[in-house]
Amino acid sequence: MEHRQSSNTFHRATGFVFLFGQMFSIFPISGILCKTSHQLHFRWFSIRTIYYLVLTIFQIISFSLSIRRVVRTGKSFSAFASVFFYFVTLTGSFFIFRLARRWKSVIGRIEKIEKIFLYPPYRQVGWTMRWKVRLIAFILLFGAIIEHLFYFGAKFLNAKIQLERCNINIPMFEHYLRTERRHLYPTIPFTNIIATLFEWANISSTICWSYLDVLVTVFSVNMAYRFKQLSDRMKRVRFKTVPDTFWIEIRSHFTDLTNLLNYLDNELSNIIILSCGSNLYFICQQLFNSFSVTPEQLNAVYFWYSLIYIIIRALTMLFFAASINEAAKEPYQMLKSLPYTSWTCEIQRFSDQLISEVIGFSGKRFFYITRTLILALIGTIVTYELVLLDHVVEAPELIQKSCHITYIETIESNISTTSTT
Amino acid sequence: MEHRQSSNTFHRATGFVFLFGQMFSIFPISGILCKTSHQLHFRWFSIRTIYYLVLTIFQIISFSLSIRRVVRTGKSFSAFASVFFYFVTLTGSFFIFRLARRWKSVIGRIEKIEKIFLYPPYRQVGWTMRWKVRLIAFILLFGAIIEHLFYFGAKFLNAKIQLERCNINIPMFEHYLRTERRHLYPTIPFTNIIATLFEWANISSTICWSYLDVLVTVFSVNMAYRFKQLSDRMKRVRFKTVPDTFWIEIRSHFTDLTNLLNYLDNELSNIIILSCGSNLYFICQQLFNSFSVTPEQLNAVYFWYSLIYIIIRALTMLFFAASINEAAKEPYQMLKSLPYTSWTCEIQRFSDQLISEVIGFSGKRFFYITRTLILALIGTIVTYELVLLDHVVEAPELIQKSCHITYIETIESNISTTSTT
Amino acid sequence: MEHRQSSNTFHRATGFVFLFGQMFSIFPISGILCKTSHQLHFRWFSIRTIYYLVLTIFQIISFSLSIRRVVRTGKSFSAFASVFFYFVTLTGSFFIFRLARRWKSVIGRIEKIEKIFLYPPYRQVGWTMRWKVRLIAFILLFGAIIEHLFYFGAKFLNAKIQLERCNINIPMFEHYLRTERRHLYPTIPFTNIIATLFEWANISSTICWSYLDVLVTVFSVNMAYRFKQLSDRMKRVRFKTVPDTFWIEIRSHFTDLTNLLNYLDNELSNIIILSCGSNLYFICQQLFNSFSVTPEQLNAVYFWYSLIYIIIRALTMLFFAASINEAAKEPYQMLKSLPYTSWTCEIQRFSDQLISEVIGFSGKRFFYITRTLILALIGTIVTYELVLLDHVVEAPELIQKSCHITYIETIESNISTTSTT
Amino acid sequence: MEHRQSSNTFHRATGFVFLFGQMFSIFPISGILCKTSHQLHFRWFSIRTIYYLVLTIFQIISFSLSIRRVVRTGKSFSAFASVFFYFVTLTGSFFIFRLARRWKSVIGRIEKIEKIFLYPPYRQVGWTMRWKVRLIAFILLFGAIIEHLFYFGAKFLNAKIQLERCNINIPMFEHYLRTERRHLYPTIPFTNIIATLFEWANISSTICWSYLDVLVTVFSVNMAYRFKQLSDRMKRVRFKTVPDTFWIEIRSHFTDLTNLLNYLDNELSNIIILSCGSNLYFICQQLFNSFSVTPEQLNAVYFWYSLIYIIIRALTMLFFAASINEAAKEPYQMLKSLPYTSWTCEIQRFSDQLISEVIGFSGKRFFYITRTLILALIGTIVTYELVLLDHVVEAPELIQKSCHITYIETIESNISTTSTT
Repeated sequence: MEHRQSSNTFHRATGFVFLFGQMFSIFPISGILCKTSHQLHFRWFSIRTIYYLVLTIFQIISFSLSIRRVVRTGKSFSAFASVFFYFVTLTGSFFIFRLARRWKSVIGRIEKIEKIFLYPPYRQVGWTMRWKVRLIAFILLFGAIIEHLFYFGAKFLNAKIQLERCNINIPMFEHYLRTERRHLYPTIPFTNIIATLFEWANISSTICWSYLDVLVTVFSVNMAYRFKQLSDRMKRVRFKTVPDTFWIEIRSHFTDLTNLLNYLDNELSNIIILSCGSNLYFICQQLFNSFSVTPEQLNAVYFWYSLIYIIIRALTMLFFAASINEAAKEPYQMLKSLPYTSWTCEIQRFSDQLISEVIGFSGKRFFYITRTLILALIGTIVTYELVLLDHVVEAPELIQKSCHITYIETIESNISTTSTT
Repeated sequence: MEHRQSSNTFHRATGFVFLFGQMFSIFPISGILCKTSHQLHFRWFSIRTIYYLVLTIFQIISFSLSIRRVVRTGKSFSAFASVFFYFVTLTGSFFIFRLARRWKSVIGRIEKIEKIFLYPPYRQVGWTMRWKVRLIAFILLFGAIIEHLFYFGAKFLNAKIQLERCNINIPMFEHYLRTERRHLYPTIPFTNIIATLFEWANISSTICWSYLDVLVTVFSVNMAYRFKQLSDRMKRVRFKTVPDTFWIEIRSHFTDLTNLLNYLDNELSNIIILSCGSNLYFICQQLFNSFSVTPEQLNAVYFWYSLIYIIIRALTMLFFAASINEAAKEPYQMLKSLPYTSWTCEIQRFSDQLISEVIGFSGKRFFYITRTLILALIGTIVTYELVLLDHVVEAPELIQKSCHITYIETIESNISTTSTT
Repeated sequence: MEHRQSSNTFHRATGFVFLFGQMFSIFPISGILCKTSHQLHFRWFSIRTIYYLVLTIFQIISFSLSIRRVVRTGKSFSAFASVFFYFVTLTGSFFIFRLARRWKSVIGRIEKIEKIFLYPPYRQVGWTMRWKVRLIAFILLFGAIIEHLFYFGAKFLNAKIQLERCNINIPMFEHYLRTERRHLYPTIPFTNIIATLFEWANISSTICWSYLDVLVTVFSVNMAYRFKQLSDRMKRVRFKTVPDTFWIEIRSHFTDLTNLLNYLDNELSNIIILSCGSNLYFICQQLFNSFSVTPEQLNAVYFWYSLIYIIIRALTMLFFAASINEAAKEPYQMLKSLPYTSWTCEIQRFSDQLISEVIGFSGKRFFYITRTLILALIGTIVTYELVLLDHVVEAPELIQKSCHITYIETIESNISTTSTT
Repeated sequence: MEHRQSSNTFHRATGFVFLFGQMFSIFPISGILCKTSHQLHFRWFSIRTIYYLVLTIFQIISFSLSIRRVVRTGKSFSAFASVFFYFVTLTGSFFIFRLARRWKSVIGRIEKIEKIFLYPPYRQVGWTMRWKVRLIAFILLFGAIIEHLFYFGAKFLNAKIQLERCNINIPMFEHYLRTERRHLYPTIPFTNIIATLFEWANISSTICWSYLDVLVTVFSVNMAYRFKQLSDRMKRVRFKTVPDTFWIEIRSHFTDLTNLLNYLDNELSNIIILSCGSNLYFICQQLFNSFSVTPEQLNAVYFWYSLIYIIIRALTMLFFAASINEAAKEPYQMLKSLPYTSWTCEIQRFSDQLISEVIGFSGKRFFYITRTLILALIGTIVTYELVLLDHVVEAPELIQKSCHITYIETIESNISTTSTT
């Protein structure tokens, strides 16, 4: 038990989560799988960092060209969504990169507090934090991969159907990319190598977007777990007489935890705002699109799976973040039940502290992630849906039934627009 | 008086309320009418449980077939309402069933605190809690039955008029069911026995929906009553000098009550969310429909009675739930008026406790049922009505004046849709 | 000074305000102008009460017939507004009547606290409360009369223009009433006496509506004044050393004031909800109508004067009610500045009390009238206007340019509708 | 260092900011550049005041004539915006003028507190407050000038293109004014001198509008800086043992700062409400217009620069104002970490004070400028955009491609409307 506890650190818990990210160029820092955090180090001239920087260049090109396309073809909800997506993932991967550079000091700060909770009188509550973190991160990231495979499946099928119907002799991979990445290939010459790199950068973007939520969730699970350990310790002495020093220690540990939370909040606030904002936007947009989705086999399956996945991912993130707030409120209930005789000034101070602050992750203190916020977000989404319902009735993206290859048209129309202006 | 008080328990108060429910398969547990709660027990192989499970199977079939109908005939507000109704009642009856299984321990927890309030120095405040609970439950459930009778009256009249006009020779009961349960009978062969069972399951569903509100109301009346007893005791000593032990006891009893409230809140939260959510949805929908209701005799009477009944039921539930919050605030007013001399550390602690927590039922702490919430809900309904006003203008459900029997058409159109896809 | 103070009671301040109301049958109680409140008494068989009851019967008839008209001619915003207006004034005059019956005990309760503040160490702050109350009530009620005179002017002018253009020989008074009270005269035979009584009942209704706001304002001015007197006393000892008993007394007086406020809040809550609700509704409606108002001379002047009057009246009421909250917060600022040496347990208790409660009038605790609420109300009105903007584009009430006398048409159409159904 | 600190006063910091204003007639008070504040004085008969009054007369004329134009040509969003703009700037310059008259006593009140923070143990935190104030004010005011130059550029270009195309022989300056100030020149005879004066008054108005935000920002920077100095002092003794007097002094200084803040809040509340209100309105309006902006070279550049400038200016103001609130919360975090042994009654009082009040600038206590408010404002803007999206689709202001000179038409149409009514 002692052993399991002492290895129950945040560093050990997140190793595999970051490894997964590094496959997609996210979180470029070495030493994440080592047993201690001393070997963590960030270098500018490492394979990981260079891998990150190269993919980022491709993503910046994609971003720029998608802006260019919006300016040229006019504003529409779906075109803007694409620009917004690249903006979110680029900014997000930059924030995560910045976190990676500071990671050693962040993990140092965490471990300073964490080591209190690894040994008795604190003990494990329910599952070990380590497996909780891994399981949740695995489910979310696995869902992201499935989502992307569905995406490929649906788009390749579309391409195949169209190529067969029209009897054209273009490789399916090329046809798919020319149709789906219309902002890229009118400008960039299509070669298989470049296309593959761009596609890989694109996959990295998609994973990065999910990664924002995963990161916040992982930190939340950790913090909520520590608060629960504290409550658990209090619960065990509920009907015993304890010395004053017990309460002094408890309050001190609680204050340490809230200080750590504030520190992490500062580090993660950018990521939290980005994650909440982008989830709000994309859920609104996709829910809105759902009113006009056509019941074509694989496309519809992809659409609904994708929508449900985003909602579940967002709710998971929000619920775990709100669970910190819930866990930090619990000690107050126990203080209430303390008998008259054991009430001291320090407990009074603890009690005041518990009721006067909102404890939890926040988006730069613009909002605190609590259960009330989740309800407010759901209410906002419902209201926006009702208001939007009236406005935009976009034609659903259909499989091209005609044999005009639209990306060729696009090029032509681009040329013509250029010539007329 | 003492006698009346000692029988004034929650177990005794709710006996008949649960008996009524059991007629419609709700709350399958035996011993609810016994004088003490010791004879309560739940068994899987009892008539009550089997009755519940059988009806549930019918309800699940209804639910599945109504989903199938929505998928087939496309989205519309009224079709979705039917799916949502079955979803709410199925989930609701399951939550109530789960509560029934745990009922013995729930009632045990309640009685542990309750017994303090049955004897002096606590005394009865106004009506006995027992009769209050019974009266309110009776009014709400009686209203539910009247509502359903109106429904039958209106629908049978419609059926009769149409059959007479068209000179068709189908039994009225069958015609009514084929018209109103269009999701069932194209798929299920119509026999009188099966139809009666489905209809009974349907009635059980409707009663169950009302039962959600009744349950929350009944618990609320009980809790508010206990808080009022506490205030009453404080009020009686307002101008007397009381020993310190008095305040220690009062605070301890108050804390016991809030702990019990938190416990019950945990047990009931699912039901509260379901009840609030479904009321919000159906009131919005029916108010919206009211803009296009036709002034046909019995149909209109049914429509308005039904709408007013839902609103009254929802408001009753919300007001009683909010009355806990109101009752729990009252002791603070008395503490304020305490003279300088009798102020002690324990009273300070009591006072802090009173102002720092929101006491009341909550929907899993997403929202607390207070008077402010009721205003917010009303505001939301008004806003949604105004926003919706613009969108959907559905044709009102008219009595078929032509002699096409629509359920036959439905079957045909189903067949044709199937064949074309 | 002492003399002026001792006559500075709420009873003396409101005498003329109630006298004005009694001219229009409002607040039927005798003794309101006496120097002391001992002579106040309410009797069922007095001229005042009978006058009230007679006018109420006329108002009930008007209400019923306006409902009948809505049911017959279908729903429209303006028709509904008329029903809502009669509902508000009827309920309002009933609430005021109920208050009049309890007036003697209400004024007794007020005077019990009031007498503390009439003598030193408390002193007059700014104007005497008596003249403040009278002035504000006078301005609001004078505005109401002007508004009604404008109304008569505009409507008589309309009648005159139409009669002249069409060369019809109906008395102007009768023509005006038949046009403007279309819900009455198709049903009730038109005689000058009955018409005059109905018109007087109608004027009484209009005054009663303004009276709701006036009443709340008058109570608010009184309560805010008392809180200001308390702050004033504290301000004067700011840099002196005061004995502990000083703070005990101050806190006790403050608690008395808040208890009185709670008592009055209970008595006035119905009126406050009615007043806020009706103001919100009518301001929304009239602002909305303002988008389609035609610039015809006197009608337009009446419309804009009326709209501005309602807004000013509502804001006056809200601001004075919110001023209680502002005044009750002020002592806290002074407590903050107290030096370390004079801080005692009682001051701590006072300080806790000041920050833990919302002090002010409330609508049955659904909402508290504070400055924040005023902003929220304005925000709601703006939002509703924007949402409504899209929906209803009613034709403005024009002066009939054709010579069809619409009330004759109405009768005919009524007859025809009756015959066809 | 001591020297730099002692000159780090608000008076010294704002000298150049006010000088800039005075070039445009804003803030007419002399002595703003002197080293001490003793030489500040306001006179009615000074060049500055007369300059202000003269320009105000021109602005009042512009305001009146723009109202006249709205009444004549009917309501439209853009016409109303012009009236609202003149209203805001006129009221704003009047509020600033009133502040200038009271400036000597305001600066006296500030310096009374300020002098505590100029000497040790307080020390400079980051940049000196003086340069912070100057830099931020410079950036905002420089942006305002650039915005206006863009405006001139775009409008002159429009005029030039049209004159060239139509071959008309009117001076460009006159043509530009007759087109852009259509409310003025049909009524006022066009002479170059009058036109220049009106144009200068108009420029003064535009600068004044930006000046509202600048003023609030400058005060906010100052107050936030003082709170930060206080936290800084606390931070330095974090792990030392300090005497009780230390905490008494800290609390006393903190209370002084909040009292000063309340005082300034009273002085600035009008300006804050005006600034927030007008920003909210114009951002909503311009964002809404952005949906229909045409991509014509300089006009589009001007439009987007202008929109972005307003948003940045508003956000700068809000963020700095909210930073007071953030800075004033910080001491609480340090109090939490104080050990058991050094906890005293005075610290308890400080702690209570920190958590029980919202510290920050407010709009007459209708709203407090905090980070939460900023989020609420952004949410409001998004919601209003979505709601408005549906309503008004105004034609964008195009460069007249035809050779009809619209201001001549306007005169004609004015004449014709006058003659027909």
